[in-house]
Amino acid sequence: MVNGLIEEEDLNFFLYDWLNIEEILIGSESDLDRETVDAFLNLSHMLAKDHFLPHYKKTDQNEPYLHNGQVRVLKDISDALDKYAELGMFAASFPEKYGGMGFPNIVANTAYTILAAANGATIGYSLLTVANARLIAKFGNEAQIEEFAVPQIKGEWFGTMCLSEPQAGSGLGDIKTKATFEGQDALGDRYKLKGNKMWISGGDQDISENIVHLVLAKVPNVDGDLMEGTSGISLFIVPKILQNGEVNDISVAGLNHKMGNRGISNCLLNFGEKDGAKGWLIGDLGGGLKQMFMMMNEARVGVGFGGAAVAYRGYRLAVDYARERLQGRNIKTDNNALVPIIEHSDVKRMLLASKAYSEGSLALCLYCAKLVDQADDFEAQSLLGLLTPVAKTFPAEYGLLANDLAIQIHGGYGYTRDFDVEQLYRDNRLNSIHEGTSGIQAIDLLGRKIIGDSGKSLDIFINRVLQTCEIAGKTNLKNSSNYLIKVINNLQRVSDKLRKTKSVDTLDNASPFLSGFGHIVVGWIWLDIAIIALQKKNNSNENQSFVDGKIAACRYFFECELPKSEMLMNFVFNESDVVSSVKAEIF
Amino acid sequence: MVNGLIEEEDLNFFLYDWLNIEEILIGSESDLDRETVDAFLNLSHMLAKDHFLPHYKKTDQNEPYLHNGQVRVLKDISDALDKYAELGMFAASFPEKYGGMGFPNIVANTAYTILAAANGATIGYSLLTVANARLIAKFGNEAQIEEFAVPQIKGEWFGTMCLSEPQAGSGLGDIKTKATFEGQDALGDRYKLKGNKMWISGGDQDISENIVHLVLAKVPNVDGDLMEGTSGISLFIVPKILQNGEVNDISVAGLNHKMGNRGISNCLLNFGEKDGAKGWLIGDLGGGLKQMFMMMNEARVGVGFGGAAVAYRGYRLAVDYARERLQGRNIKTDNNALVPIIEHSDVKRMLLASKAYSEGSLALCLYCAKLVDQADDFEAQSLLGLLTPVAKTFPAEYGLLANDLAIQIHGGYGYTRDFDVEQLYRDNRLNSIHEGTSGIQAIDLLGRKIIGDSGKSLDIFINRVLQTCEIAGKTNLKNSSNYLIKVINNLQRVSDKLRKTKSVDTLDNASPFLSGFGHIVVGWIWLDIAIIALQKKNNSNENQSFVDGKIAACRYFFECELPKSEMLMNFVFNESDVVSSVKAEIF
Repeated sequence: MVNGLIEEEDLNFFLYDWLNIEEILIGSESDLDRETVDAFLNLSHMLAKDHFLPHYKKTDQNEPYLHNGQVRVLKDISDALDKYAELGMFAASFPEKYGGMGFPNIVANTAYTILAAANGATIGYSLLTVANARLIAKFGNEAQIEEFAVPQIKGEWFGTMCLSEPQAGSGLGDIKTKATFEGQDALGDRYKLKGNKMWISGGDQDISENIVHLVLAKVPNVDGDLMEGTSGISLFIVPKILQNGEVNDISVAGLNHKMGNRGISNCLLNFGEKDGAKGWLIGDLGGGLKQMFMMMNEARVGVGFGGAAVAYRGYRLAVDYARERLQGRNIKTDNNALVPIIEHSDVKRMLLASKAYSEGSLALCLYCAKLVDQADDFEAQSLLGLLTPVAKTFPAEYGLLANDLAIQIHGGYGYTRDFDVEQLYRDNRLNSIHEGTSGIQAIDLLGRKIIGDSGKSLDIFINRVLQTCEIAGKTNLKNSSNYLIKVINNLQRVSDKLRKTKSVDTLDNASPFLSGFGHIVVGWIWLDIAIIALQKKNNSNENQSFVDGKIAACRYFFECELPKSEMLMNFVFNESDVVSSVKAEIF
Repeated sequence: MVNGLIEEEDLNFFLYDWLNIEEILIGSESDLDRETVDAFLNLSHMLAKDHFLPHYKKTDQNEPYLHNGQVRVLKDISDALDKYAELGMFAASFPEKYGGMGFPNIVANTAYTILAAANGATIGYSLLTVANARLIAKFGNEAQIEEFAVPQIKGEWFGTMCLSEPQAGSGLGDIKTKATFEGQDALGDRYKLKGNKMWISGGDQDISENIVHLVLAKVPNVDGDLMEGTSGISLFIVPKILQNGEVNDISVAGLNHKMGNRGISNCLLNFGEKDGAKGWLIGDLGGGLKQMFMMMNEARVGVGFGGAAVAYRGYRLAVDYARERLQGRNIKTDNNALVPIIEHSDVKRMLLASKAYSEGSLALCLYCAKLVDQADDFEAQSLLGLLTPVAKTFPAEYGLLANDLAIQIHGGYGYTRDFDVEQLYRDNRLNSIHEGTSGIQAIDLLGRKIIGDSGKSLDIFINRVLQTCEIAGKTNLKNSSNYLIKVINNLQRVSDKLRKTKSVDTLDNASPFLSGFGHIVVGWIWLDIAIIALQKKNNSNENQSFVDGKIAACRYFFECELPKSEMLMNFVFNESDVVSSVKAEIF
């Protein structure tokens, strides 16, 4: 079934044939089986097609707007989320004690991806709400969970994450929002907050009954000063409407008008312009950033899923268009009939690249989501930490390239707003920026995960890659296997050298390192996929075109993409100062 | 003067220090000198800043619309073009006999680039008009020139190029517009045209008194049938308003709503829905495509200039933002003060890449424009043919990357419509599509110019590169010189092999060949520029930061970009069938 969203055949292949998620289902709290999971994913597909996709264009054309200090959102978005709440989807990944269905992370994220392929802005409200509720459920006290998390798990209230400020984006240590202790009540320690928060997705809307803001702020010391840096940052629950029905002291100072992803409101919020906004401390004083970042790591894989979903949808639309559009002839035959453009080599090249980028992105994120589910497995958690910057960045950057190619395949039509591909391209462009820019991911990878932990997680990664290579080496994927071993040896050589250097200068080339490492990771993912595809190829009952496609995409990635990693790794190995040596004045 | 458009210092460097255009000025018809050229470029800058830039955002927010069958365009666009016409700018590149100023192509294109950096959509109307008038001046009879070209040279009438049809984009041989002979009159052979033309920029507007359409159509044979393929295509002049004041039989069937570049209307035009639209044959029957393509080659370099202009402006805006925005600290010092982000290595990396792409694009196009001016020089014309696909494609693809990086440097702000960088990105995305997609350019390069002419133009190119390398080899650019020689030897090896193969299969990998070749061309351009910069560096009166910038960008390109060409050329050399072997069913 070619439906333009996420193909069922792909999901079955990735989830069951490749990742064998049944082993997770058996161990899950709710004792789920494949039938239940499939029913849930089918429901997600139905919701996506019937309630999220139809207003995709409309979300772009009818941005949220401010009316008397209140943000108004397109009614279609509200209706779709009502339907979503009605079916209990907000609760899908929560344990039964919160009324949830207890689906593993990988299943919940698969459902999210299906919905994000249909309409990333609309499902975005849910993404933030679920993340907010999960954080409160993890770090909040019982009263906070009951008051603030449960209504979100039911989908009655929505949530936000308030981190950035106008002057503090990537540099959260410089936030100035101030929280002053006021007293204790049934919900815990109550504070008054004053400050401005920027880039707040879903910061205001007229969909949910209430909005729960999770706000990073600093508590002043005895002299009334805020501590410098990140250590003094705490996390507060600040609802739009208080328990007594009063409106909290929060106002919408402005809406950002974005290039894409327009359906979800993005606000500048002023907290405490009058008396101070009431908020309750969650967890310990000074633990705010740590709490936020435990969620942030999951959020980053979530951004990856979003990028993969948008890339994948663009790829499928391009395939459909290329099959239908007649243009030119096949120059290799005498036949003078017009051919669908999918027969032209250059279109095949673009489709192969799109397939390798978009399906590779999706597979990588699914792999990471499975790691999230292996919460008690130290090896899995180390690997997850290492792969998260790649899962955040590769779908954003190479998924965007897939969206770019989808436009190119559509020709002039792709550049018009009559087709979805240009909107998908604009939507995906956000993903390199929010939840930590690509540059931040690069420093996280190289600084913390390659150099910082003395190579432990890298060793785990390399072992897994070599296991894959060993299996592939016994098949006709032997050449690819040998090449990947060579690439891995080079990675080891580069990492060893950087660790020995022990200089902050090594971070100067963190971005090329991330790009090169990302290609190695995705190359490995493709080889691992191709092994399974090859096994299925030997079974004549299997769809041969489908498995051939996976093998072809793997081959494409190895021939046309993976060599880039060598180039990048050599650049990093040489510790070139081409970038760091230039002075700002030369620009 | 940092003005966000094209820096005077860059233009002086490229035009006079590097390309020594004074040698062209001396030989020009109008006997121009540098003072006159500089006055003209200053005038262009003034127009750009005062009349084109102020409504850049407005052109995006107020698209052309249809009202009673007539396209309405933002008044600011009309006002700017009135001013432009008033100053005689439409005539700038025409000879004196048409009331022109006789500026060489390179000067006219420099002025265009300045205006395109300010507002590519607004100047687009002029670009098409000038190209239209030039074609008529070249191939039309005296009466046609007087009637149709002269009013355009004055800027009173505007022009269009009508090539594509809904079913025939890249495949012009399949156009169906039919021209039936009607009789002769003072303007030449008159025909009646019937057909639909798609993607017509400026196809209708309410700015100019009249619109001159140049329309490709086929004349039926005695049986009333249209000949297949491109050989039967002729070119016709079809005005919106006829000499007697009657409105010709042309109607606007629709407007395309584009992702960017919105200020210039883009129409679906129906010719001859009633009686047939009156049009006059230009030149010989069957010569239409040849005439159009003589102009098209210049238009393709023009697209390159447009892409370079937009990329360059994005780069300059990113530099300005990076100097102002405070965020984070310099981790290499103990100083705890916030620093402008231009001090961070990753931002420097992005700026260096942007500089290398955008200035490299501009320099390449200027080099090609100088070749256009050397019309009697066989070697220059061969080289121009070879470089044109690169001049069309590199600024579109890598210029777009510069625009992408400009967004990234702006962070979340760059993703909002409050800043210009997201609009520039959307604008530039068009350039890989119109006037021949990148895929078409690749086939043109490899099929016609590398294989088709037995390597003559490639030999000329290689000779020039080796000359540059010889000079650079005597300076401290020796390493770069040696590397480029190695790259060139590889290019020669690949080209020799492809020519010997004599198979259409070689075209399967035309796109990677174009990408690899493009990088070699731009690498050579940067080395040639760095030689001049190095000479100036030895003169302490020169702005050292400026010349250091050029040398740094060259070094960046050689270390971080040029290695890609090796990777791509090796892929092409191996004649990989990774793309051509896959069947359409696998997608």
